[in-house]
Amino acid sequence: MDSLTPADTGQKEALARRYGADAVPPAGPWNEVIATLLDHRSVRGYRPDPVPAGTLETMVAAAQSAATSSNMQWTSVVAITDPDKKKKLAEWAGNQKHIEQCPLYLCWVTDMSRNSAISTAEKVAFETMPWLETFLVACVDVALAAQNAVVAAESIGLRTVYIGAMRNEPEKVAELLGLPPQCFVLFGLCVGYAAEQAVGEVKPRMPQAMMLHRERYDATAAQAGRTVHDAEMLRFSARQEMQAGTWTQRVLNRLGPIKSMNGRERLRATLNRMGFELR
Amino acid sequence: MDSLTPADTGQKEALARRYGADAVPPAGPWNEVIATLLDHRSVRGYRPDPVPAGTLETMVAAAQSAATSSNMQWTSVVAITDPDKKKKLAEWAGNQKHIEQCPLYLCWVTDMSRNSAISTAEKVAFETMPWLETFLVACVDVALAAQNAVVAAESIGLRTVYIGAMRNEPEKVAELLGLPPQCFVLFGLCVGYAAEQAVGEVKPRMPQAMMLHRERYDATAAQAGRTVHDAEMLRFSARQEMQAGTWTQRVLNRLGPIKSMNGRERLRATLNRMGFELR
Repeated sequence: MDSLTPADTGQKEALARRYGADAVPPAGPWNEVIATLLDHRSVRGYRPDPVPAGTLETMVAAAQSAATSSNMQWTSVVAITDPDKKKKLAEWAGNQKHIEQCPLYLCWVTDMSRNSAISTAEKVAFETMPWLETFLVACVDVALAAQNAVVAAESIGLRTVYIGAMRNEPEKVAELLGLPPQCFVLFGLCVGYAAEQAVGEVKPRMPQAMMLHRERYDATAAQAGRTVHDAEMLRFSARQEMQAGTWTQRVLNRLGPIKSMNGRERLRATLNRMGFELR
Repeated sequence: MDSLTPADTGQKEALARRYGADAVPPAGPWNEVIATLLDHRSVRGYRPDPVPAGTLETMVAAAQSAATSSNMQWTSVVAITDPDKKKKLAEWAGNQKHIEQCPLYLCWVTDMSRNSAISTAEKVAFETMPWLETFLVACVDVALAAQNAVVAAESIGLRTVYIGAMRNEPEKVAELLGLPPQCFVLFGLCVGYAAEQAVGEVKPRMPQAMMLHRERYDATAAQAGRTVHDAEMLRFSARQEMQAGTWTQRVLNRLGPIKSMNGRERLRATLNRMGFELR
């Protein structure tokens, strides 16, 4: 794909939106694909309009085009448009109304059931299945696939938000979707056109110096970077009329009290019951 | 972004390359972003040419633009260009020469150390850290970020391949990169220009009917789909002069014997030693 000149697609503006004016990284290669990636924001309010015909199949083709470890293809997708199902899922996710609102809700499934069935059909024991490693690589597969689907959706003007709260009630979700053992909804994804008030701003991220290391990990930039990021998140929160102004405050709120996990501290035991040994 | 007409960017051809002529899904929305996603193939041979100036920063900006759960930003990247380091990493990954060859090698780190340091600095106990859930969401964060970086790289003509074999020797890798406790290289990523012989073909994936479910999971399509996918992978393998012709045979080879894990069945114990409790 031809590179566009930065002026064509607002490279500097895009980088400043992502990092804040005080932490803009050097401008590298740029084109419409990269501009699409940089413009991501999670959207939590949707118009009722349906997605264009063929959107689901195109998102899935993009998802399946992502790398998959050893081509094992651990991903399944359950596409939900049924209002009653979306209502239940929204409730279990702590009343996230955008799950009900969005015209298309995708449940991204870590699916070890499909490959396990090959063990049975071909009468070959699969010694690799009960290990944490195999579960982890399957979840990574699912995440890579879903992110490609998100990029595809955003490239045609749709918006999305990942729903980690599917892990609040994994067994209820699995039952509603008819999942067999060894299948688990890793996360959900709302897809649709953003409601006018819900597009929001690009959310700032920490300066690159905090997380990009050269040749060797170096933690020394993290403290100074955090001050810069706190200030930027404070400005962002003020503009968005959000609480928990600094990034540090958000980290303390989210990672401090166990109640912020909404029961997900039980995940390992739940997964064991659902057919994942995680040895 | 404007949609292009299918003829402009070869939508039908792209879908046929991905699924084989016998399993082409319906053609939905299409544009250059989607064409870039569909064209992915993992590349295991690189020219020595360096990547363009600013590529690393652009890939990282794309990575940081991916969704991150509650904005906790669990990702670190260690960028390696040092030949000695790449040589060691290549050896530990089972002599994957492309790690040495590629001009830029990225180690994608599940970094719980950076946020743990905030607990210490702010004198607030982080009750959420020792749980499997928190580790899993951090790994998903890293995967979403890395996939955005891959899309950015491929959009400017670079190629990549994920290296799961960083998990063969997680502690050696961590020591080489100077990682603190609670940091773990989830996977590596080679980045560079493909050597002429190494571009390869788009690798076929299973028919959508095998993995895309509507409203409710339905396993009945999996058996018929597997026959179609086996035949397509057999044709692909013959063209590529690869062994293990059918997809089923690859699954049996990869998931059957525990020796195919190259020691990764020890991952849980290793992670425990590296500071991840995974309760």
